[in-house]
Amino acid sequence: MKQASVLDEIYAPVQEYLPEVETVILTTVATSNELARQAVQHFFSSRGKLLRPALCLLAARFGAHISERAIRIAAALEIFHSATLIHDDIIDAAYLRHGLPTLNIKWGPQTAVLVGDFLYERALRTIFNVGISKVTLLMYDTAEQVCDGEILEAKERFNFNLTEDEYFTIVEKKTASLLSMCLEAGAMASELSLDETLALKRFGLYFGLAFQVVDDCLDFTGEENEFGKTLGSDCDAGVLTLPLIRLVSLVDERKKAEVFQIFKSDRGMEKFDYLRRLLAEYDAIEYARAKAMEFLDKARLELSIFKDSAVKHSLHTLLTYVFERER
Amino acid sequence: MKQASVLDEIYAPVQEYLPEVETVILTTVATSNELARQAVQHFFSSRGKLLRPALCLLAARFGAHISERAIRIAAALEIFHSATLIHDDIIDAAYLRHGLPTLNIKWGPQTAVLVGDFLYERALRTIFNVGISKVTLLMYDTAEQVCDGEILEAKERFNFNLTEDEYFTIVEKKTASLLSMCLEAGAMASELSLDETLALKRFGLYFGLAFQVVDDCLDFTGEENEFGKTLGSDCDAGVLTLPLIRLVSLVDERKKAEVFQIFKSDRGMEKFDYLRRLLAEYDAIEYARAKAMEFLDKARLELSIFKDSAVKHSLHTLLTYVFERER
Repeated sequence: MKQASVLDEIYAPVQEYLPEVETVILTTVATSNELARQAVQHFFSSRGKLLRPALCLLAARFGAHISERAIRIAAALEIFHSATLIHDDIIDAAYLRHGLPTLNIKWGPQTAVLVGDFLYERALRTIFNVGISKVTLLMYDTAEQVCDGEILEAKERFNFNLTEDEYFTIVEKKTASLLSMCLEAGAMASELSLDETLALKRFGLYFGLAFQVVDDCLDFTGEENEFGKTLGSDCDAGVLTLPLIRLVSLVDERKKAEVFQIFKSDRGMEKFDYLRRLLAEYDAIEYARAKAMEFLDKARLELSIFKDSAVKHSLHTLLTYVFERER
Repeated sequence: MKQASVLDEIYAPVQEYLPEVETVILTTVATSNELARQAVQHFFSSRGKLLRPALCLLAARFGAHISERAIRIAAALEIFHSATLIHDDIIDAAYLRHGLPTLNIKWGPQTAVLVGDFLYERALRTIFNVGISKVTLLMYDTAEQVCDGEILEAKERFNFNLTEDEYFTIVEKKTASLLSMCLEAGAMASELSLDETLALKRFGLYFGLAFQVVDDCLDFTGEENEFGKTLGSDCDAGVLTLPLIRLVSLVDERKKAEVFQIFKSDRGMEKFDYLRRLLAEYDAIEYARAKAMEFLDKARLELSIFKDSAVKHSLHTLLTYVFERER
C-alpha cells in the first residue's frame, strides 16, 4: 500500500478536523511583518505530515468528542514543532526541509533564528490561551526537554564514545518528549482518566523513540528525493546515531580510529558510501531496527487498557507504519 | 560623578531587593545540562546593569511594598532580555558582550541558538508561574514585538533609504517595548491604578526610544574598552541608525552613493573613521541626541501624575543618566 494511503487510514478518525487545524495554524502564524510572512509562508507551503496534530486529536478522540480546545492545542504543537525544525536546520546546516530549501539557506541564519523565535512565541501563547493550566506547564516542560536534548546532541557531536544509553537520553528529550506530549495533551483536552492519560503519554514516548531510530536509519538508507531532506545530514553534522554507535561497539580500536577519521572527514558521498558499506557488513541497521521494534512493542502494550475502537486501530496501524515507512 | 554611583543612586529605593532578584535569576537558569550550564554561567558571570529588573521594581515601588511576585517578574525580564541578547549576538556576529566573548564566538551559533531558546523558555515559564494573567499576556505580546522589531531590522540592513519613521518603528519594537513592559509589569504586580500603570508604560516607551538612540550614538562615539562591546558593530552589520539616517538625508545623491559604497565595504577602522568624520561634519550625532532629549522630556511629563517620592526622584535621575552615560 502506498504510504499516503496508510496515513489516510491512520488519520481517518480525526481526518475531518485536520482542515480546521490547518486553518488555526495559518491564522495563528499570520503576521504583518513582510519578511516573517514570506518565510513562514515558504515554510508552510510544503506541508509536513501533520503527525503531531493528528496524534493529539487521536488521543482526544478517545473521549466523547474533539473539542475546540483540542484543535487549538493540536495547531500549537505543529507550530512549536515547526519552530524547533527551523532552529534545527540552522544547527545542522541542512539544505532541504519537506523538499524545499530551509529558511537558513534561503534567508540566512539571522532570519531563521528570528522566525523560529516568532513561531515559538505564537505556539506558547496559543497553548496559554487555551487555558488548561496543566497543558501549559506540560508545554514548558516539553520545550525545555527538546532544548535540553538538542544541546546534548550538539555537545556530543563527533564523540565516538557516545553510548547507547546516552543516545537514547538525547532521543527521548529531543524527539520523543514532544510526540509524547501530543498524546498527553490530547488526552488532557478530552479529560480522559489519569490511567488513560499516562498510558497515552507512555505510548507517545515509546513511539517517539522508535520513530527517531527509524529516522536515523533512513538517514543512511533512504532516497534523497523521496525523503525530502538531505541524506547523510546527521553524519555531516557529526551526529552519532544508533547504527553508527552499534558499528563502533563492534569493531576493534584500529578499525574504530579508521572509521572515526572517515566520519570526521569532509569527503561527501565517498565517506557516506564507505559508512553504508560498513553498516551493512556489521548488520548495524538491522540492529537499530530491532531496537525500534522493541519500542513499538512496548507502545502497543500501552494500548491494551483501551477497548477496541477506530482510534485504537489507528494507533496500532501507526506503529506498523512507522516501522515500514521509507521517508 | 562616576556612572556607577549614579546608578547606585537611581537604584537606591529598590537596592535591597536586587540581590534577591539575582538569586532568583541564578536559581531559574540552573540546569543539569553541562554545556548549557557552562554557557549560562559564562553569560551571567559578567553581569549587566540589571536595568530591566530595577525598572520593574521601581515601578512596583510606587505601591505599598515590593511583592515576591514583583521580584520573580523582575528576574524573568532579565532572563528574557538575556535570551534576546544571545540570539542578537548571533544575528550581529558580535564578538564581545559585557566585555566577554559572546556565546556565538565561544561555543558557536548552534549552542547560542539553543541556550537562547532555553533562557527564553525559562523566562516565559517563570512569568506564567507568577500567575498574573495580564502579565503573562503582556510578556507574549512583548516577546512578539521584540522579535518583530529584530526581523524588521534584519530586513532593512543596508537599506540606505530607511526613513526616520521606519527606524523609530524598529526601535520601539525591538528595544522600547521590553523596557516599557518592565515598568508596566512592575505596576501590575503592585496593582497600581490604570492611570498610573499606563503612565509608567508610556514612560518606559519614551525612555526606551531615548535609550536606543543614545546607544546608537555610542556605537559611533563610545570607547571600545569601556563600552564592553564591539564599537561600530551596527555599521559592520549593515544596520542603519539615526545618526546615519540623518547624514544620508542631508547629503546630495552623489555623496549618498559614495557614503553607501563605504558603508557596504569591508574596510574596518578606515570606514569607521570616514563615517565618524562625516557624522561630525553634518552634526548628525547632535541631531540624534536632540531627538533622544525630546523623548526624555516626554518621559518626564508622564511622571507628573505621581506625587514626589524617592522612587519618582530615581526615575527622574534615570532620564538624566541615560542621556549622559558613556557606555
